[in-house]
Amino acid sequence: MYANNIHWSPVEQKVAQSAFEIAYKREVKALIEEVQIQANQINVIEDMWHLHDFLSARRHDIDGKYDYQYSVLIFVFARLVKEGWLQLSELDGLDSDKLGKVSALTRM
Amino acid sequence: MYANNIHWSPVEQKVAQSAFEIAYKREVKALIEEVQIQANQINVIEDMWHLHDFLSARRHDIDGKYDYQYSVLIFVFARLVKEGWLQLSELDGLDSDKLGKVSALTRM
Repeated sequence: MYANNIHWSPVEQKVAQSAFEIAYKREVKALIEEVQIQANQINVIEDMWHLHDFLSARRHDIDGKYDYQYSVLIFVFARLVKEGWLQLSELDGLDSDKLGKVSALTRM
Repeated sequence: MYANNIHWSPVEQKVAQSAFEIAYKREVKALIEEVQIQANQINVIEDMWHLHDFLSARRHDIDGKYDYQYSVLIFVFARLVKEGWLQLSELDGLDSDKLGKVSALTRM
């Protein structure tokens, strides 16, 4: 499902930007909390390198995931919904075709 | 100053192992405390990636520094003394030639 030719109206762009930011803030907030919990549980050096590996993986993941390009946004939103960072209802305002695609992708 | 041909007596080996472990434990303890302080001060994602960069650098540094090979131990001890993880007095028991070399290297 190549989405490069999907049109996003100004209203939809606003909804999309808002949803994108909400999910990003939620995930970053949860990650900061998780890092602080892990850091405070460090007792031995292996725990510290485990935190380092965890941060490496999450940084790579977040850098790749939050890609605000309209050509891939349907897939980004589907992933964010699937992972629990976004509710489908927070995409209200997108046309039914886009919502249907996001919803279908989350069930894959 | 290539040190491959330096002889370490059994007593010196014991002193060296003990000093090596003392320094390692001190540095790891200080690092864990520093990581916990930094983690608890994270407010925004940039702070978290800063902690990640810090851990990457420290891991690389520590992995390289704590190299227990008799051929390089004089240099390792000199660095540890210079960085404050070891006191020269904690190497008491090494022969005067080795102590002199460590001491000279710490002043370079």
